[in-house]
Amino acid sequence: MMKNLTPMSQDFNQWYTDIIQEAELADYSPVKGTMVIRPYGYAIWENIQKYLDNRFKETGHKNAYFPLFIPKSFIQKEAEHVEGFSPELATVTHAGGKELEEPLIVRPTSETIINHMFAKWITSHRDLPMLINQWANVVRWEMRTRLFLRTSEFLWQEGHTAHVTNEEANEEALKMLDVYEEFVQNVAAVSVVKGLKSEMEKFAGADKTYSIEAMMLDKKALQAGTSHELGQNFSKAFEIQFSDENNKLQNPFQTSWGVSTRLIGMIIMAHGDDKGLKLPPNLAPIQIVIVPIIPKKEDKEIVMKKVDEINKLLINQRVEVDDRDEVTPGFKFNEWELKGVPIRIEIGPRDIKENKVLISRRDIDDYKQDVSIDKLLKEIEYLLIDIQKNMFNKSKDHMINNTTHVDSKEELINKLNNTEGFVTCYWHENKKDELEIKELTSATIRCYPLNNKETKNSINHKDKEGSFTIFSKAY
Amino acid sequence: MMKNLTPMSQDFNQWYTDIIQEAELADYSPVKGTMVIRPYGYAIWENIQKYLDNRFKETGHKNAYFPLFIPKSFIQKEAEHVEGFSPELATVTHAGGKELEEPLIVRPTSETIINHMFAKWITSHRDLPMLINQWANVVRWEMRTRLFLRTSEFLWQEGHTAHVTNEEANEEALKMLDVYEEFVQNVAAVSVVKGLKSEMEKFAGADKTYSIEAMMLDKKALQAGTSHELGQNFSKAFEIQFSDENNKLQNPFQTSWGVSTRLIGMIIMAHGDDKGLKLPPNLAPIQIVIVPIIPKKEDKEIVMKKVDEINKLLINQRVEVDDRDEVTPGFKFNEWELKGVPIRIEIGPRDIKENKVLISRRDIDDYKQDVSIDKLLKEIEYLLIDIQKNMFNKSKDHMINNTTHVDSKEELINKLNNTEGFVTCYWHENKKDELEIKELTSATIRCYPLNNKETKNSINHKDKEGSFTIFSKAY
Repeated sequence: MMKNLTPMSQDFNQWYTDIIQEAELADYSPVKGTMVIRPYGYAIWENIQKYLDNRFKETGHKNAYFPLFIPKSFIQKEAEHVEGFSPELATVTHAGGKELEEPLIVRPTSETIINHMFAKWITSHRDLPMLINQWANVVRWEMRTRLFLRTSEFLWQEGHTAHVTNEEANEEALKMLDVYEEFVQNVAAVSVVKGLKSEMEKFAGADKTYSIEAMMLDKKALQAGTSHELGQNFSKAFEIQFSDENNKLQNPFQTSWGVSTRLIGMIIMAHGDDKGLKLPPNLAPIQIVIVPIIPKKEDKEIVMKKVDEINKLLINQRVEVDDRDEVTPGFKFNEWELKGVPIRIEIGPRDIKENKVLISRRDIDDYKQDVSIDKLLKEIEYLLIDIQKNMFNKSKDHMINNTTHVDSKEELINKLNNTEGFVTCYWHENKKDELEIKELTSATIRCYPLNNKETKNSINHKDKEGSFTIFSKAY
Repeated sequence: MMKNLTPMSQDFNQWYTDIIQEAELADYSPVKGTMVIRPYGYAIWENIQKYLDNRFKETGHKNAYFPLFIPKSFIQKEAEHVEGFSPELATVTHAGGKELEEPLIVRPTSETIINHMFAKWITSHRDLPMLINQWANVVRWEMRTRLFLRTSEFLWQEGHTAHVTNEEANEEALKMLDVYEEFVQNVAAVSVVKGLKSEMEKFAGADKTYSIEAMMLDKKALQAGTSHELGQNFSKAFEIQFSDENNKLQNPFQTSWGVSTRLIGMIIMAHGDDKGLKLPPNLAPIQIVIVPIIPKKEDKEIVMKKVDEINKLLINQRVEVDDRDEVTPGFKFNEWELKGVPIRIEIGPRDIKENKVLISRRDIDDYKQDVSIDKLLKEIEYLLIDIQKNMFNKSKDHMINNTTHVDSKEELINKLNNTEGFVTCYWHENKKDELEIKELTSATIRCYPLNNKETKNSINHKDKEGSFTIFSKAY
């Protein structure tokens, strides 16, 4: 099993690809650039969905479903939108044995078709806010693809909302960014920075794009989720109008926000090691694996009876019993480490005599602990919380330890070229300058962090104030 | 609200279309033949998914996700499959600004791509059974479409399994048919007949297709779910091989099975009336609506306090409080009847004085009942069960009362042309004869029911035995 896993230190990219294949998270599909999400990977996605879907509903959103196909003319209605997405579109030209009169675009995102419907549904201020979410597949034809991170088809959710005022839309965009932050930090155990994207990096058609940015173990950034203020760009293009309290027609202010199966890629790259995946307990499809140790055939019955008892004790945890006869315990240990299961319980005849089990933690190397069966449930509950916390703290420390601050443009270019990690500075928003940095270093502005509103002399315009800014290479 | 609802007796089809629009279940999309599933309709789909997904997992299946796009050559590998689906395919010819070397088919179903992957994943008998399910959108370009029942894109689940033996595959196909029956009868409260499809009606590529058939209120049949035994047709076409216990290479036996958003159409047409939808409690997104009755402004506080109290009492039920000021109670009653909410609770100042509420049932016309608040929870729990049972019994009686038996071919043709409903007879499987009946009556064999294996002289071949058979016009 482990033989096919390239060490992380040797080749991070190959390690990433190997893990996905070996842990059976996903597989290459015969259609270039698309992937098959295998059951173990999909179970992670289901846990992501379960948490977020609850939070979306708690914050007043309702799910709906809009068509996969979008008339080509719709995509063209919002000028920046069409410019941004044109190179990536897949087009259906034939259907039902005939050539179509108007080609259909396979949705790269659904602003256009959803706002077309909003125009029909929204007539009065009483219809607002309209708070809709959709779980769906989308297609963006990518040249260079990578499992989970960048595939021609991926799964995601896209929230689309319409509001009476700009303030309300702004609140909504930030609220959903908070939901994403909460998920990634508390459930995926990955530290993130919330921030505003630069003009160069914002969504095609948005006034403002916010994102959460995480740092992977190779110190590159990964944009884990985005939330956009669309202003009235789409409501004007699609003629969405409501009569306000004074019976005046107005265009609503809108937001959209999304996260995708890319999050699975983030989880892999934020937590793993040379043995494989490390999954945070709050997200792991299997939180605990029980491996029976059966040195002699005649021990089997008594061991399996105890395993059964413990399995029942842990009714509220997600437990897998690995009772395969055809492989050794050592093989099983490797396999479940590869699959990132947070806790392993071993139980053999000697443990049973001593009324205990042996526990290993995936997040701490060589951690082994005897636990009395009487105290097992309490200990497991404690460990799941502790592992979750420990994984998040590691992620947070990693980000802090790999962030450096610079005070000049030369230093910025130098740092970005010679070290990995986040580089902060005070920067005056300017597309041309950002492009220059990108050309010289291949790094971009990840965001203007929301938690630091201080301005200082900028490093790119000596006469102008700059905002606190994070530059980094990114996935 | 009600003004736009055509009475069922006047025009069943128009009634169906009106309900979908007026109850905001779905809407027409700008792309011909596709639909938008609105939040209230999607909430029904989510409840369908929740129940079935649990049952699939309990029966050992795991979810995965396969690509939307299928190489055209894949569809062509199984001869009957390509013949069956060719007229309905949508084709992507351009992507990323270029013409594709090989056109891609937007999946009409996923046997081909899934079996391509199975060939990679299955090598040993230890890999079997492989039990996979996918929740996804599929596209079948339809000429005549109808919201929920037949749309060019729809949502569904498709189970795909591979087994060592034919017997095991047969068991699986029937087990999943049972799960569908259980869902439709116990949750959707619609009576169904389980049966085997005729050769003419079976799935393109299957050895056998089983279905559950329901009867709508206009007495037409609706196929609510199908389960297929694929034999080795796909495993041979896609070269899926496993080494058996004697190290001999074998092709597995397979099944596939699915239900779709069509089920929502079934629920509408099996239960509604001139006032609108009737939703069974086990499936209804809102089981109980509470309408506060506030004759004078000064009553508002005390009424809303009691409403709040009752809402908290019903914590385990799906409750909506309709506290809108801008519409009258009568308007609200009509709207929630239209939306098919099983129970309505009215509460006003007089009720509060008498420590009671007024309850109406959606399944029984003009049913009104005073219930003491002290007994409310018990009564609600009882009513939800009773309404569910009553709706199912009505559906069952409707099917029994509209099924007639015939003993000759002339009588069969006569009945099918002059009355609606199921017509049973003993029939000798024969494509040509079935086609003749279809041409003369537009009815088809719905199924050979599984619960009646008796054979008798057939009505279409006087020398041959026939199986018990249901003919009907169908959606």
